[in-house]
Amino acid sequence: MYGGPGVRSWTEIPDARIEDPRDAIIQVDAVTICGTDLHILGGDVPEVTEGTVLGHEAVGTIVETGGGVGGLAPGDRVLASCISACGICRYCRQGAYGQCRGGGGWILGHLMNGVQSEYARIPFADLSTYKLPDRVDDESAVLLADILPTSYEVGVLNGQVRPGDTVAIVGAGPIGLAAVVTARLFSPAHIVVIDKAESRLQAAKMFGADTTVLVGSDDALDTVQALTGGLGADVAMEAVGTPQTFELCTTLVRPGGRVANIGVHGAPATLHLEDLWIRNVTITTGLVDTYSTPKLLDMLVAGQLDLGHMVTHRFGLNEFMAAYDVFADAGRSGALKVVLSR
Amino acid sequence: MYGGPGVRSWTEIPDARIEDPRDAIIQVDAVTICGTDLHILGGDVPEVTEGTVLGHEAVGTIVETGGGVGGLAPGDRVLASCISACGICRYCRQGAYGQCRGGGGWILGHLMNGVQSEYARIPFADLSTYKLPDRVDDESAVLLADILPTSYEVGVLNGQVRPGDTVAIVGAGPIGLAAVVTARLFSPAHIVVIDKAESRLQAAKMFGADTTVLVGSDDALDTVQALTGGLGADVAMEAVGTPQTFELCTTLVRPGGRVANIGVHGAPATLHLEDLWIRNVTITTGLVDTYSTPKLLDMLVAGQLDLGHMVTHRFGLNEFMAAYDVFADAGRSGALKVVLSR
Repeated sequence: MYGGPGVRSWTEIPDARIEDPRDAIIQVDAVTICGTDLHILGGDVPEVTEGTVLGHEAVGTIVETGGGVGGLAPGDRVLASCISACGICRYCRQGAYGQCRGGGGWILGHLMNGVQSEYARIPFADLSTYKLPDRVDDESAVLLADILPTSYEVGVLNGQVRPGDTVAIVGAGPIGLAAVVTARLFSPAHIVVIDKAESRLQAAKMFGADTTVLVGSDDALDTVQALTGGLGADVAMEAVGTPQTFELCTTLVRPGGRVANIGVHGAPATLHLEDLWIRNVTITTGLVDTYSTPKLLDMLVAGQLDLGHMVTHRFGLNEFMAAYDVFADAGRSGALKVVLSR
Repeated sequence: MYGGPGVRSWTEIPDARIEDPRDAIIQVDAVTICGTDLHILGGDVPEVTEGTVLGHEAVGTIVETGGGVGGLAPGDRVLASCISACGICRYCRQGAYGQCRGGGGWILGHLMNGVQSEYARIPFADLSTYKLPDRVDDESAVLLADILPTSYEVGVLNGQVRPGDTVAIVGAGPIGLAAVVTARLFSPAHIVVIDKAESRLQAAKMFGADTTVLVGSDDALDTVQALTGGLGADVAMEAVGTPQTFELCTTLVRPGGRVANIGVHGAPATLHLEDLWIRNVTITTGLVDTYSTPKLLDMLVAGQLDLGHMVTHRFGLNEFMAAYDVFADAGRSGALKVVLSR
């Protein structure tokens, strides 16, 4: 899928080839579309140039490796992570792979061609892929390329969800829903999910939210305060990527609480420091580092992550245009994740 | 000192008296003026009603205690902290005294009469005061009523300053300077202080900053990037309380770094989430809890806190109007802290 602000097409391109000894080429077995891809098409990520192949979430089979790749061989079935990592720069050495300054970070479908393609080049392949156990199917695995580690690291871990907490999650798209799944690992008392689509709130309940707020019908602040004796949420997560939803999070959080921004933003928000300066609030932003991906794979194998209802629509690889239409119109189609397989 | 938005006067008021069994009355021996008092007079803290006695930083002698005060007796020399604490509510039980919901928090000179007075009522006196060792003089002690714990807890500890860090401090008033003093305890590689007054930058160097940036002459971002190989500051502290200085902090901080807001704000700031969402930045706000005050007193006794040049002007208690004039015109007077003593 070629893309850029306002432009998308499914077309023939030259096959991906090894360009650096640390590259591998994968044949894409399963690939999905991310809300971030919609942000790119909407112009929120202006550094993506027109004609870039989008996509940063795939499962594939190694077909070729460069001479500097040590741990992979043709035939290996791997998860191609949204984050590539040189492994050498100061950020990689701290495990902050998302901030890699050695040419990695979030580059697939962003600064180089991505994985919405039949074949894809994966740079720093040893560090940018994860070999998949046989027991993990493609559809579950592809959810660990981005949405699970992003929601877990940038939402739940940055937000420091703790047992007994009241957690408010604004946005019930795949990221918000994955935040519900991974927040539950810490046994919060309440997970309140706020969205404007009733179908997504029903999905949130299925994944484990106990309280839902339909924007326009219910008042989010009243709901959270009623659950918390007026205090507010311990943790509020932003999983949409708009100024309004971010600002809502800063009003929902209690004194001493945390706002974890997960969303991709294209515009500034207003930070009401005249209220917040005195409230001991912590706000975090972040691109996922994927340091949690091996552990999430363990949890998937152990049956701790119930992702069974996350994939709602399935397509062949050559049906990308239709898949985008379904995903972009999620309010009508009820789409959560759409998976395209060869 | 009576005060409210735009109003101040030094006048006769009825003597403070015990109103609750946990109260104590102190005779004020030494008291200072805080930048926050100027924010109040400027209208940034609208909940302060006209006619409130200002002031939340004093050293005094206990003259009377209520029946519920266990650890204090007339004649005791105490530090009256800016934070009062019920000790009972859920926030107090977590050590988050600044967020006390049992009637404490920052109430002196805010929600009740403060300590810019000959006598003052101190609520929850057992938890809101600290007995002073003989070796600690009034002038040093009064700096521990607010600026030292505030800079330390809300700036240095929230900012998680670590050895080798590059720390940028925007604002070289007493709070910014106390942040320099307490940041040094963690052995940062560089402390860069940014201010628009050359005299305050000279003070910053005296307290231990190695690099200063004069707003209007030097470029803060260029300076910080030159020190850090283009990365930016590990920690940026806001010690002014304006949207511009906060926003500067968010540009100075490196990916993965922290912005610790210390300033009192009266207006919202713009948060450039379109840049920050991807940068793993943590932003903290906070009112001091004063959990560090006993340890800061220990450090003062041990000679670890060099505060010798922080008090620049001395007055008698009845010279409050002149003291405010000198403090409010710090750019011309060179005032850092002004202390009024009986």
